[in-house]
Amino acid sequence: INAENIQQFRELFFELHPQDQLEIYLETSHSQRQKMYEYLSPEEFAEIFEELQIEDQKKYLLELNETYAQDMISHMSADNVADFLGEIHETKASAIIEGLEEKDAQDIKELLAYEEETAGAIMTKEFISLRASSTIKEVIEVLRQEGPDAETIYYLYVINEKFELVGVVSLRDLITSEPDSLVETVMSSRVVSVPTSEDQENVATLFKKYDFLAVPVTTETNKLVGIITVDDILDVMEEEATEDIGEFAASRGATDLTLSAFSAAKKRAPWIILLMFFGMITAGVIGQFEETLESVVLLAGFIPLIMDSAGNTGTQSLAVAVRSLALGQLEKKSLSKMVMREFGTGLMLGLMCAVTLMIIIPFLHGSVWLAFIVGVSIFLSLSIATVIGTIVPLAINKMKLDPAIASGPFITTVNDIIGLLIYFSIATSLIAYL
Amino acid sequence: INAENIQQFRELFFELHPQDQLEIYLETSHSQRQKMYEYLSPEEFAEIFEELQIEDQKKYLLELNETYAQDMISHMSADNVADFLGEIHETKASAIIEGLEEKDAQDIKELLAYEEETAGAIMTKEFISLRASSTIKEVIEVLRQEGPDAETIYYLYVINEKFELVGVVSLRDLITSEPDSLVETVMSSRVVSVPTSEDQENVATLFKKYDFLAVPVTTETNKLVGIITVDDILDVMEEEATEDIGEFAASRGATDLTLSAFSAAKKRAPWIILLMFFGMITAGVIGQFEETLESVVLLAGFIPLIMDSAGNTGTQSLAVAVRSLALGQLEKKSLSKMVMREFGTGLMLGLMCAVTLMIIIPFLHGSVWLAFIVGVSIFLSLSIATVIGTIVPLAINKMKLDPAIASGPFITTVNDIIGLLIYFSIATSLIAYL
Repeated sequence: INAENIQQFRELFFELHPQDQLEIYLETSHSQRQKMYEYLSPEEFAEIFEELQIEDQKKYLLELNETYAQDMISHMSADNVADFLGEIHETKASAIIEGLEEKDAQDIKELLAYEEETAGAIMTKEFISLRASSTIKEVIEVLRQEGPDAETIYYLYVINEKFELVGVVSLRDLITSEPDSLVETVMSSRVVSVPTSEDQENVATLFKKYDFLAVPVTTETNKLVGIITVDDILDVMEEEATEDIGEFAASRGATDLTLSAFSAAKKRAPWIILLMFFGMITAGVIGQFEETLESVVLLAGFIPLIMDSAGNTGTQSLAVAVRSLALGQLEKKSLSKMVMREFGTGLMLGLMCAVTLMIIIPFLHGSVWLAFIVGVSIFLSLSIATVIGTIVPLAINKMKLDPAIASGPFITTVNDIIGLLIYFSIATSLIAYL
Repeated sequence: INAENIQQFRELFFELHPQDQLEIYLETSHSQRQKMYEYLSPEEFAEIFEELQIEDQKKYLLELNETYAQDMISHMSADNVADFLGEIHETKASAIIEGLEEKDAQDIKELLAYEEETAGAIMTKEFISLRASSTIKEVIEVLRQEGPDAETIYYLYVINEKFELVGVVSLRDLITSEPDSLVETVMSSRVVSVPTSEDQENVATLFKKYDFLAVPVTTETNKLVGIITVDDILDVMEEEATEDIGEFAASRGATDLTLSAFSAAKKRAPWIILLMFFGMITAGVIGQFEETLESVVLLAGFIPLIMDSAGNTGTQSLAVAVRSLALGQLEKKSLSKMVMREFGTGLMLGLMCAVTLMIIIPFLHGSVWLAFIVGVSIFLSLSIATVIGTIVPLAINKMKLDPAIASGPFITTVNDIIGLLIYFSIATSLIAYL
């Protein structure tokens, strides 16, 4: 495609969907890319650049000459520029901001000021706002002109002279109403908005509940400052799902496939080594009972069984708690209900496992006392494991601590230690019968 | 609110967002609900009923008298009716279908025929299609009339006389174009569509990639049969995230908070008991090495450490594989690259852990040989654990087997067994030095 004919290249290229243009761009060589920068105006290239991953943006920005880059950035939408600038060196970022027009620069600075993962940080400033006193005909005329630049024109927000949000009207409502009627008569004044400080996960929950395509973001004084569109929410949900999985695997931020083996190992090693030290605590617990073990080595065989069962049951409870938190299903009164339910579930699971083991072990090992020790240990440790699997993530969520502490392996390790303590304590006190 | 005044109730009620109406409905008592059925027409109540969970739909349908119910169902959109009917008893479902108008009945039967979790099953039949030869003015007139009923009017699909999909035009394009121009000149003929049989997870990936608000669904012969809108995709992503978490915790379908402790235990017990039997295999492995253990009981202390480390490393690799599958990041050539990368990561993690242990253990236990045995075992088992954590989910995905077999606990158990086999084999062969 990239032969020599500018005209032909541009024609073919612009027939493609931006996302497919992006894929072509990513597959070209350095010299082909240089040619693309010649063929495409900074404004046209801005659209491709916006779609790149931030890591790639950093890389390719260095290939551009400064004027081209500055020109391109001025054509990007403010939220994308802010996302990018938030990730590069501060002095470089402020140099870029200074090269922009006053208004754009201000928008970007504002966006950069919001905390990560809040509504303010993910919103866009490219929205269309209306006055309640306009006629629908006038609004449609405005859309004709401003439409191509706005992030969405399907939901339009109505503000008063103080920029306060007073209503919402969908393009569908506009189209199906009389051209001469006023926005006032068509709009809905019950508009759901989110404050700039709202957590992005809660915003996603709102979208799911109300099937929104867009939601307005307001300041504490109800001034409209931005909107969030549903395509941003798809990204948020993906991010949150990855975070949840990371919590289960103690590998937050390390599921990225593009990392080299070495950097993946570097990111994951702290977890594995930290967890290994926890494992040494467990080793210490067993060490305390060396005498018991020495007299009945058979007991060692059930270490994995106790550990696995307590670990698995705890992880199931963790899954319930993590999903409930993610879905926003939890209200205060249901917290204790949930813990009680999990405890009940643990009692029943423990009972089932205990009965199974008490029947099987006498056949395999001929010892009713051994069966009794293992059975009672399983019953107690599973009951406790469900409670720990539920309470730890909830407590951490409440204390707003880093949820990584609630990750699967940590809970599993805690449950391992408790399970083995129970097992060896019972075994030690009943050693005379073995 | 539910005093006695119909007029007043209806006024207040219809000012609310449908989702909030739903919440009020769910909080009312049986007799209050009976009053609501009187106050609201079947058509009005259909909108609330559509938003209910399927379980609740089943429950509340029984409260309605038959004519009211049938009338209400005829006002629901076909995809929602199909979802509901797919879950109730077949004879009852066909009785309801027979009560509907011919056209509606056919739509519903068609939707019911698609396999679950495919594009066909989640699509809606309420879409607006255009001819390329219409003028924009004509189209907007059509939207004015049909707009309120369609699922979305923001993306409109253009078909030819054979109902084949030939293009797409957004309402934004229509608004910003001359009223007299033809659809043909405005539409884009490069339209991305999905076949009815496409997996819903792949459809979600398309939405994320292209930031779609809607996507057309076609038959194998490119006939347009439905559309999928972004709000359905939010639900799909949520479902898939819950499934992924379930895979990690071996608790698929059991993260539902509304279950009683007993039914939660019943759903989870098969996993826990099955995994407990796996744990007994591990017990058997240890049993094989009873002699070794008897002579050096200290070895038992490191069982948890080996198990935990191998399990955690395998789970991290599983997280990488599961996320990559969910994000659709994997092409064929990158499969082996991914396994190789994980193996490399495993070698490095193993090396780090081994070195740490070889330094610490001599201080704690005074035995260089013990340190050597544990260190080498950790190194080998972590290297293998990453490969198993990666290959198993990929292989299962390729063979289209139930991914539950690839769940965290299973992989952990396999890695436990391998790790302990390595550990005890090395220990047995070096027992003379301990």
